[in-house]
Formats: sequence, C-alpha cells, structure tokens
Amino acid sequence: MEIDQSPVQGKARPFSRARSLLEALPGKAKAEVIGFAKSVRKLGQDDPRRIIHSLKVGLALTVVSLIYYLRPLYKSFGEAGIWAVLTVVVIFEFTVGKLTGGTLSKSFNRGLATLLAGVLGLGAQYLASLSGEKGQPFVLGIFVFLLAAASTFTRFFPRIKARYDYGVLIFILTFSLVSVSGYRVEELVVLASQRLSTILVGAAICIVVSICICPVWAGENLHNSAASNMENLASYLEGFGGEYFQSGEGSNSDRSFLEGYKKVLNSKPTEDTMANLARWEPGHGRFGFRHPWKQYLKIGALSRQCAYQIEILNGYINSDNQVPLEFRCKIQESCTQISAECGKALKSLASAIKTMTIPSSANVHVENSKTAVKDLQISLKAVSLEHDQELLAILPGATVASILVEIVISVEKISESVHELSNLAHFKSVEPTVSPEKPQLLHRGAINPVLDGDSDHVVITIHETSTGLQENENPKAPKIGQRVEL
Amino acid sequence: MEIDQSPVQGKARPFSRARSLLEALPGKAKAEVIGFAKSVRKLGQDDPRRIIHSLKVGLALTVVSLIYYLRPLYKSFGEAGIWAVLTVVVIFEFTVGKLTGGTLSKSFNRGLATLLAGVLGLGAQYLASLSGEKGQPFVLGIFVFLLAAASTFTRFFPRIKARYDYGVLIFILTFSLVSVSGYRVEELVVLASQRLSTILVGAAICIVVSICICPVWAGENLHNSAASNMENLASYLEGFGGEYFQSGEGSNSDRSFLEGYKKVLNSKPTEDTMANLARWEPGHGRFGFRHPWKQYLKIGALSRQCAYQIEILNGYINSDNQVPLEFRCKIQESCTQISAECGKALKSLASAIKTMTIPSSANVHVENSKTAVKDLQISLKAVSLEHDQELLAILPGATVASILVEIVISVEKISESVHELSNLAHFKSVEPTVSPEKPQLLHRGAINPVLDGDSDHVVITIHETSTGLQENENPKAPKIGQRVEL
Repeated sequence: MEIDQSPVQGKARPFSRARSLLEALPGKAKAEVIGFAKSVRKLGQDDPRRIIHSLKVGLALTVVSLIYYLRPLYKSFGEAGIWAVLTVVVIFEFTVGKLTGGTLSKSFNRGLATLLAGVLGLGAQYLASLSGEKGQPFVLGIFVFLLAAASTFTRFFPRIKARYDYGVLIFILTFSLVSVSGYRVEELVVLASQRLSTILVGAAICIVVSICICPVWAGENLHNSAASNMENLASYLEGFGGEYFQSGEGSNSDRSFLEGYKKVLNSKPTEDTMANLARWEPGHGRFGFRHPWKQYLKIGALSRQCAYQIEILNGYINSDNQVPLEFRCKIQESCTQISAECGKALKSLASAIKTMTIPSSANVHVENSKTAVKDLQISLKAVSLEHDQELLAILPGATVASILVEIVISVEKISESVHELSNLAHFKSVEPTVSPEKPQLLHRGAINPVLDGDSDHVVITIHETSTGLQENENPKAPKIGQRVEL
Repeated sequence: MEIDQSPVQGKARPFSRARSLLEALPGKAKAEVIGFAKSVRKLGQDDPRRIIHSLKVGLALTVVSLIYYLRPLYKSFGEAGIWAVLTVVVIFEFTVGKLTGGTLSKSFNRGLATLLAGVLGLGAQYLASLSGEKGQPFVLGIFVFLLAAASTFTRFFPRIKARYDYGVLIFILTFSLVSVSGYRVEELVVLASQRLSTILVGAAICIVVSICICPVWAGENLHNSAASNMENLASYLEGFGGEYFQSGEGSNSDRSFLEGYKKVLNSKPTEDTMANLARWEPGHGRFGFRHPWKQYLKIGALSRQCAYQIEILNGYINSDNQVPLEFRCKIQESCTQISAECGKALKSLASAIKTMTIPSSANVHVENSKTAVKDLQISLKAVSLEHDQELLAILPGATVASILVEIVISVEKISESVHELSNLAHFKSVEPTVSPEKPQLLHRGAINPVLDGDSDHVVITIHETSTGLQENENPKAPKIGQRVEL
C-alpha cells in the first residue's frame, strides 16, 4: 500500500518538508521518487482529463461533506448524511455514462432499488411483526435469506447483469438494512425517506459536477475509438507494401505503425461497455439523444475482422520464406496499391467519423482498391509455373495477395457500415478540402476537370471507359459518370 | 425493474396464491411467466454453481444479520453492525478470488484501506483541531479535497487499477467519513475500531462461507477455460477437412462445432481478470499456492493466435470461389490430415490440462501434422499450371493450405507452452490408456512392438528411416529412436 501513501503524504505535509525529505533520501530511493513523479506527469499528460476527473471527485466529496459540516443541514439529514458521502464515493466515475457502471445508470439504479427495497423492507417488517416478538427474528431471517438468494440469482441473467447489476446489489443491501435495522428503530419511514433523500442529494451533486465541469462522455469515447481503430488499421495497410516488398533493405527503422492494429484485436469488451453506457447519457455536443450507438458495435465487429486479417498478414512480413523475386515483382505494384488504397479508404472513413461528415471521399479509395484487385488478378493470370517457378515457392506471396483481396472486401463492408452510420446520425455533407494525396484516381476513364464557376474547388467528371470493373458494385459508391468532387 | 419484482413476489407470497394468480392471467402473460420460469431453470441447469452461490449469499447475509438480531452482540458492536451487512453485500462474489474483485482481495483491500484511512483521518482531525473551531471545517474540507483528488488520480495507474482499485475506493470513503464524522463524534478511536472489527466479522463470514461451502475458484475457471478454448479450436480443426472438401454434398447439418472457436477470439479480458484473481486464492485441490497462473495467459495468447487463423480459414468454407476439382483432390488428403492431426493434438493437450498429466500423447499428433505438411509440400511441388490451371483459380485453395501450415506452427507453439506449464506445475506422468484413435502414427519408420515383461502395456520403439522430416525439431517432441509408450 506504499503506493497510496506516497502521493498522500507528499500533499498532506508542507512542501518544504517534503523537499528536505527527498534530499535526505539515499540515491536509489531518490531516483525512485523522481521516477514515480515522472510517471505521474506522464499519466496526466497522456490524458489531461484524468487530472480534471480527480479534482472533480475532490470537489464533489467536499461539497457533499457540507451536509455534515454545517449544523442546520445536519439536523434535517441526521446520521443518514453518511449515505450521501457513500453515494458520491461509490457512484462517481470517469465518464458520464461511464466505464464501470455509469453515474446516471448507477443513480437511477440506486434510487429505484433503494425505494423498492425500502417499501419491501417495510412490508417484511409488518409481516414479521404479525408473528409476535419471538417469531419476528426468524421470519425476518427467512425473508432476508430468500430475498438475497433470489436477487443474487437474477444477477446471473446476462441482460440484468449488463444493466441492473448495481441496482440489484443496492436492493439486497437496502432490504437487509431496512428490514433488520427497523427491528431496532421504530421510525422506519422517516429513516427510509431520510436515506433516500440524502442519496438523491449525493447523486445530484455527482451528476451536476460530472456533467457541468469538463464532462467525459462514454459515447464520445466510443465514437473516437471507432475512428482511432480505423486509423490504426489504416497506418498498417499504408505501410504494409513498403515493409513487405522491401524487407531488409531500406525498411523503416520506426516500425511502431505496425503495432497499432493489435489494439483493435481485443477492442470488443471496451466497446460493448461504452455502447451500454452511452445509452444512459443525455444528448450532448454533436450527439443527439437517439444517436445510433449500436451501429458503432457493427463497425467495431467489422474492424476487428479486418484486424484478424492483418494479424495473419503480419505473420508474413518477417517470414523466412523468401518468395522468388520474379513473382514478387509481378504482384508488387498491385498489392502495394491495394494495401495503400485500403489504408487511405480507412483513413478517410476515420476522418469522416471524426468530423461527422458524409464519407464520400472514401468511395474513391474503395473503388481504387477494387480496381487494383482487378490488376492483381490480371497479373496473376499471367503467372505460369513453367519458368521453373514452383507453386510451393510462390505460395507465401500468393497467400499475401489472397489475404489482401479479403481485406478489400472487409474495407468495403466497413465503408458500407460507416455510410449507414452517416445516414442514421445525419452526418453533414461537407465538401472535403483538396489534399495532395487523394486525387490519385485509378479509374481508367477520361477525366474532364471543370472550373466550377465561383466556388474555389475543381469538379472532375469521370466517364468510365473500361467495362467489367464494377463487378461487386457498391450501391453507395460513386456510380459511373457520377460527379466526384475533390 | 419488473424483473426484480417477479421472482421476489413469487417467493414472498404463499405458493397457492401465486398459482391461482397464474391461472387468472391472460394467455399471453401466462406464456411469458412460463417462459421466464423456463429461462430461470435453464440458467440453473447451465451452471448449478449459480444456485449454490445464491444460497450462499443468502446464508452469509442471514448469519451477519445475527449481529443485529441478537441483543448481546448488538451492544458490543453498536450501529457499526450496519458495516458488517454492507461488507457482506459488497464483498461477496461468485468465485473465491473472484470475477470482479475477489472476496479475499476485497477483504484485504478493505481491511488495510480502512485501517490506513482511519489512522490518516484521525491525523487530519488532530491537525484540523489545531486551527481552532472556526478554521476546522475549512482545514478538513481541504484535506478531504486533496486526499480524494490524489487517491482518485492513483486509480489511473494501470497497476493500481488492476490490484488495489477497490482499496483506494474504500480508502477515500473511510477517510471522508472518519475525518468528517469525527467532527461530531468524540470517541473516534472507539468508532474506528468498532467499524474495523465489524468489517472483519463481515469479511470473515464471507470468506468462511465462500471457501467452505462448494467454493468456486477463479484459478480453476482459468484452468478449465484454457482447456475448453483448445477443445473449441480442436472441434473446428477436426471438422474442417470434411466441411471444406465436401462443401454442399453430404455436409453435416449440425454445424455448431464451427462456431465454438469464436468464443476464443475475445477471451483475453476474462482470462486476464481470472489470472489476476487466482493470485489471491490459497492453494486448493489440485492447485498449489504458487501455481504458475501466468503461464495460462501465454497459452491463452497462443490459442487466440490460432483462433485468428481459423477465423480467416472460416471465410473460405462458404466462399463462392470454387477451386478446380483437380487441385482440390491433390491437396485434399494432406490438408484434411493436417487439420485433423492439429485438432487431435489440441484435444489431447486439452485433456492433459484437464487431468493435469504430462501431454506426451500430443507430441505424436504434432509430429503427424508436421509429416502431413511435408506431404502437402510434396503434392504442391507436383502441381504445374500447364494443364490449363490458372494460379488465380487455385489461389483460394492454395491460401487455405498456406494457412493450415501456419496453424501447424501455432499448434506446435501451444504444445510447447503446455509442456512448459506441465513442467512448472509438476503435472503427473500418467500412461494414457490405449484409445483406438491415437496410435495412427504417420512416422515412416519400422515399428517393433515389444511385450514389456510383467507390465500390461506394449512398448513400441520407432526407428526413423526417412530423413529430413525433423526439420523444425521440437525439443520436447519424441526424439528419433525414443520409446513411445502407448
């Protein structure tokens, strides 16, 4: 527990004493203290909302303590004021509809469960009192046993576990306390109403502090995590071509972009929790009250699917099996193109989510990647195994190509589901600014740039000339002859 | 909250009245009640430990309520008895070192945090009292604010979050309550010791009930989940050959075995939690105090790796891309063999974990699968693309073969890590019983069965004849000329 103590003492004691204490420490301990201070700073820098959250908890607790400090309030609330403090400590969490239960969800659960348990506790009291003074403890004991056992069992229902787990816990707690303590205290109704009102005060303080001072929303976290997941996948795919085809020579020394996708692999539980909590949050900022949070789960599942494919792909980057150069050269261009275009598609989907605009620029990249697949297929058709190339030798390369084709399908599905999200959540239709990377169209068509009157962007109309390229046609992708605004 | 109410009312009221109530219900509501009853029964049947757990909670609560019921005890514990009830409700969980915090971990955290916070609270009281009656509330308020903010911040440290999160929560709670309530009550030391002792009583009741009555161990769950994960993967691999190569005609209608592996994909968070909790459990049953729980995480990571590969493989089962029959026939035997032997290897690894015996029988299957890989490579070498077979057409089949080879590597790694576990945990060396499936050796060698004197088993010595088969030699696999006991 020395970990708890150090920050506590460092703040509770005067700072000058802490400094002289630090100087008196032997070298190793000093280095440890400095290391600890650094890790504290890093933690705060990584996400400054953490510091704000800590201060918010302090504030809420200090405010609720007024109930005890100030005598007039004390008289009206009595010993039950303890429940307000308890409520704040147990309820207050990081996000508004939060990571482990939700301030609002817990308040709702706690309030309703306390009310229900209080009423039932009174009922149990009354029934027990009918059985005379001697029978009373036994009847109450039986009630507590039955109710606690039955309520605990309901916690195994997945639906109740997900939404009302905390409520059931508080229900058991309050029922036991009310029915048992009522055996002593006569004015049970007064006590129950006191307790409920103090809990409501505690919960109200939590909600006000949590929402009004730099709120952290689970829904916003979910929204951002969907975008950052896609960016992680995109970074990998954009860099994959270079890594795979130039393995050894001139490969980038900073390969951290190859690790990001691993975060996506295990993202499911966090996303499920956040989606559950987001439902408890009122409309805020860019998110309406009925924002389609469920759609994020669909996008998340598709992103993970893509991450699994990348995980397999990654196994081939450092593989010892060297594919013959001739075959590598044949697939290099189209494979690099596929991977890069998929990366770009995911990047622009991610930025569309971030800015909440219709992801129209992604369509171009999805189409480009599909065109690159056609190119790859043409290259593969040209491969013959006659020139002493064995299937066995080129197999790893062929597998990489095969998985890349699967990734294109995944990316197209992701694009579709983001389009669905943009429909459901009414994303704005904002014309993307011209970026130097994006207009790298692969459509084999005549491109006619047209200056669009008074606006400051260029409109390019594509008239597709080659046929058979639109095989897996995406209904939301730009149609042939459709105007693609850059 | 109608969900809480229904089981409660059903038990609180006399049964005859409940039945007549059921008959009075309209058809639809009656069907719903019956459906609910069925889901309750299913929940209990799926895992009877749930019913026992519910009864255990009821028992612990009833026992702790004695503190209130019986007057002599009441006098010594006072109002603090409320804390015993609260402790039981909050602490008691499903597994001993349990799914969301651990009875023992929470007791330890709660006990230590309460003690520490109590002492610090007294210190804060003393310091505040120095500043006179008017300054006292302000000084206390500052202490509460600083301590709550600092402690909350420590909860963002991943290491503290994982192990001491609950302790920090209780620390904040107790510190606020002690320092604030002490402002009213003069006999703070008496109160703190009373509170601590009642909490210890509550925790002791929890621990006794939890360990002595049908305990549910997180470590055992982790152990079993490692085995069941492997079984899920094995079921898929054993069935894969049949599904892939006979797609359409005569495929099994019950394809549930193809879904099991999906559970493995997202197993990481559960396993991490269980491994964290298992450390808090005393030695029990077959598991010593220092059982290598961390090794299960390693096995889990490798199992997930294999699950990712299966996920990709699964995409090819229902694929529209029909691979030419000629090519399919060429790879069918060796691919089916690889998949089946990997499945068998995983099954025997799983059963070795379950029975805690040295997984020697798995080595044979791992070797068989590696031999099948050689066969596959020989078949692939024979493939020429002359007979109007295009690389593009056979690509999906080749990819499946390629991924199967990767799966063999994964399975070998899993086998190695299970061997490591068996070393670390001192698994017993039990001679496996002769099963009709296992002795299907693929070693190309002369097998000399020898009757082994008075023992009732046959010893077979294998003298490997062909060379180059032992390329990726596994140090734990049976060596050439080594005795394989059947």
